Amino acid sequence: MEGPIKHKALINVDMGEGYGNWSIGPDADLLPLVDHANIACGFHASDPLIMMETVQNCIKHGVKIGAHPGFPDLQGFGRREMKLTPDELTAMIVYQVGALKGFLDREGAPLHHVKPHGMLYGMCCKDYETAKAVFLGIPKGVPIFGLAGTCMELAARDLGIEFIAEFYADVKYNADSSLVIERKKRPWNTDEVYARVTQQLQTSTAPAVDGSTCTIPVKNHPVSICCHSDVPGCVEVVKATRAAVDAFNKSYFPGA
Amino acid sequence: MEGPIKHKALINVDMGEGYGNWSIGPDADLLPLVDHANIACGFHASDPLIMMETVQNCIKHGVKIGAHPGFPDLQGFGRREMKLTPDELTAMIVYQVGALKGFLDREGAPLHHVKPHGMLYGMCCKDYETAKAVFLGIPKGVPIFGLAGTCMELAARDLGIEFIAEFYADVKYNADSSLVIERKKRPWNTDEVYARVTQQLQTSTAPAVDGSTCTIPVKNHPVSICCHSDVPGCVEVVKATRAAVDAFNKSYFPGA
Amino acid sequence: MEGPIKHKALINVDMGEGYGNWSIGPDADLLPLVDHANIACGFHASDPLIMMETVQNCIKHGVKIGAHPGFPDLQGFGRREMKLTPDELTAMIVYQVGALKGFLDREGAPLHHVKPHGMLYGMCCKDYETAKAVFLGIPKGVPIFGLAGTCMELAARDLGIEFIAEFYADVKYNADSSLVIERKKRPWNTDEVYARVTQQLQTSTAPAVDGSTCTIPVKNHPVSICCHSDVPGCVEVVKATRAAVDAFNKSYFPGA
Amino acid sequence: MEGPIKHKALINVDMGEGYGNWSIGPDADLLPLVDHANIACGFHASDPLIMMETVQNCIKHGVKIGAHPGFPDLQGFGRREMKLTPDELTAMIVYQVGALKGFLDREGAPLHHVKPHGMLYGMCCKDYETAKAVFLGIPKGVPIFGLAGTCMELAARDLGIEFIAEFYADVKYNADSSLVIERKKRPWNTDEVYARVTQQLQTSTAPAVDGSTCTIPVKNHPVSICCHSDVPGCVEVVKATRAAVDAFNKSYFPGA
Repeated sequence: MEGPIKHKALINVDMGEGYGNWSIGPDADLLPLVDHANIACGFHASDPLIMMETVQNCIKHGVKIGAHPGFPDLQGFGRREMKLTPDELTAMIVYQVGALKGFLDREGAPLHHVKPHGMLYGMCCKDYETAKAVFLGIPKGVPIFGLAGTCMELAARDLGIEFIAEFYADVKYNADSSLVIERKKRPWNTDEVYARVTQQLQTSTAPAVDGSTCTIPVKNHPVSICCHSDVPGCVEVVKATRAAVDAFNKSYFPGA
Repeated sequence: MEGPIKHKALINVDMGEGYGNWSIGPDADLLPLVDHANIACGFHASDPLIMMETVQNCIKHGVKIGAHPGFPDLQGFGRREMKLTPDELTAMIVYQVGALKGFLDREGAPLHHVKPHGMLYGMCCKDYETAKAVFLGIPKGVPIFGLAGTCMELAARDLGIEFIAEFYADVKYNADSSLVIERKKRPWNTDEVYARVTQQLQTSTAPAVDGSTCTIPVKNHPVSICCHSDVPGCVEVVKATRAAVDAFNKSYFPGA
Repeated sequence: MEGPIKHKALINVDMGEGYGNWSIGPDADLLPLVDHANIACGFHASDPLIMMETVQNCIKHGVKIGAHPGFPDLQGFGRREMKLTPDELTAMIVYQVGALKGFLDREGAPLHHVKPHGMLYGMCCKDYETAKAVFLGIPKGVPIFGLAGTCMELAARDLGIEFIAEFYADVKYNADSSLVIERKKRPWNTDEVYARVTQQLQTSTAPAVDGSTCTIPVKNHPVSICCHSDVPGCVEVVKATRAAVDAFNKSYFPGA
Repeated sequence: MEGPIKHKALINVDMGEGYGNWSIGPDADLLPLVDHANIACGFHASDPLIMMETVQNCIKHGVKIGAHPGFPDLQGFGRREMKLTPDELTAMIVYQVGALKGFLDREGAPLHHVKPHGMLYGMCCKDYETAKAVFLGIPKGVPIFGLAGTCMELAARDLGIEFIAEFYADVKYNADSSLVIERKKRPWNTDEVYARVTQQLQTSTAPAVDGSTCTIPVKNHPVSICCHSDVPGCVEVVKATRAAVDAFNKSYFPGA
């Protein structure tokens, strides 16, 4: 039995996932509602101009900035499986994180974390060697956002990387606590989102797609709840998550 | 009359200009012969794995590393004119230089300089606003390699960026001292290369394509001679350049 | 004085301009309102899956299908100037039109026309050699959509290609009748659209951005009015265009 | 026991696998030596200009032209595994084959066959649904080149597509007759090539990497021997293959 999480909960959201003239999420509406942004780095989404503007907008709103590197697959939005060699994985992380850091350095803002995107995240969860190759590309001292109880947690531990555990407000869990990764996101009922987030924060469990209850073993790790900006109606989803998080924090960490 | 250059001459060469399975230059053969490498950053050539390996090889040979950002045009090798907005230009430089810096930071190596590639270089020479937009993307304190007497020198001066002047061993000059940029490089006679380099170092002039002599006004700037790794027979071209540079340095800067 | 156009007016709209998970226009809402679709071919927008679906949707609605090839520049949506050689231009048209024709052949549908996209269209208007190189890539017997009185009309005539003249419902004209090409489209007042389209159909003139009136010399060419699916509120713009076109056709071509 | 093949043997080679300024194979030297060319279609290699020139060169040499579509992965040369949906696979084949057909139509040359490239070929061998989705994108009446005894042969049979079986001169076989797909090709001893090709033609068997002998069950299918233009020393490899093929044909099909 895991019980309630041990830290004040925070919220992260993917940002800057447009490309050229195309946009997806209502980033401007989401910025006031979240604590952490995962900024796409140009491989699965985003381009230099969008990254420059997204970094500046996050700084204006006091949102902490993480790199969100993904597979080199704009057409598949980084949600198609690709098999790369370990060296290719490491190099593509160094490249993408470095590119984002270019914009951060220019603004004098720190890199808060790294979170792999989409199918790369899914493969890091399932495959230790993939997680390790990816994490070897992360600058020293920068924490990883990931799913507790998976190869991500193991690889972070083995490499001495700080691990921040995630709950998911808007992604479904399989019975084995793994994530159901879809190419395109579907809408959510916001009451369900509120309930799911609250359940995860209070019990470290969540409803799984087969009707069972799965456990996300976050242990003593800090926790950030993930929402996606490409979910239809995402502003309402994030508001429901914010409400659940604020209620939890007020109740469990009244002085914080 | 400009006369001989005021500093010991050095040599720079473009490196890491392959892409995936494709390669162009004999980088391994060139590394022992040069002082500065301009490493492609993935937009006109190169990819993360090639950049990682090229950075490591340069460090092994004690070659100083510069970023070589270009237009987002792999198909045109960055040698086709593209019209981008000033913000796009700045952002694409921040991105590419940041990506390269990711690999340098990982190895504990400094970024020595930035040199725009191909048609971007040509447009920076001719258009002050382009040069300024490009240079605004360069990290503070990092010098620019460029062509003296052009908008590159002016923009560098106005932005307080250190300017390192280039001579070209293997690119022809127009009568107005501008460069003849070609999509694909042609072979050179190495005696001609030796003579051209020597003439430039001793007199700051060069033969132009119309038979006249043009002046490259390097003034007191430090000078680096540029060679290209995609010229057919480039190893011999660089050896001839090395011989001319060494002879000049020995004669004019005997104690250095 | 040009006077009213000599043929029943029709409407064309760009379609299938998404990419992977990104979409732009409300294609499904526009299909019932238009006669001709210009389908993006994967260089400035679209991908194979979107093309397959867009072709099938056009066929369902009886909308005639044209190829809409553009510069190889997804990031700039084909609205950034690029300088390619004539052979490159010809080859990139053959490639894109051939790719679209693959989907048409599979459905047994004919290729109705070709219309260059964005900045390529703008360059074909201004530069005869560009227009000619582009048109040399079009299969024999397929008409071109273009702007009358420009190099497009001249090159089509010289190459014996049928020319279908366009008016623009949602793009502004300069005083010299050239188009004002913008990277991102702005919203329109629908009354203004109705008035502009009606004026063009009845008089072959349009208001120019400097307040003057310009003439679009469509002569005896068939005419198709162009609307864009990436204009904010484009469904209302197309409805206003449809209303103006239907009113004109009823009045001038009552039996057709 | 399969015994010698039932038809005169022919040779196919991949062609046009450069990209922009990069090139790989000595296409001009190979054209006089082969019967069939598999032309890359721009997704794993090639671009419109290279395709246009390669098609023209093949026609000059009387080499029959096939489409060689691959995964959308220039960086990985189509040799990295990617998971696409069946609709995506079908659409990407229609697109690539259509693009090549654009160049063929222009020259009045027929499309002789389609052969999936690299990892896509490998996945078609192993996975029936992948093979079926790929083959659904091929124009009616066009044969497939593939590996006998795999899902490629089954899917071709079920879809009523003519199947041309391949032997490999320069790719190793596993004990189960599957191919060893490598990202970069290695050099071959030409005597070994001659012996391998002869063995395959005379016995439908080949040496496997574990030292055993594997059977490639070509049955009554026509046969084309595959060589690769990106193998170091490929001209000598193809010459050895040509010699083996000519000797076999002379001996087994003296009148043909």
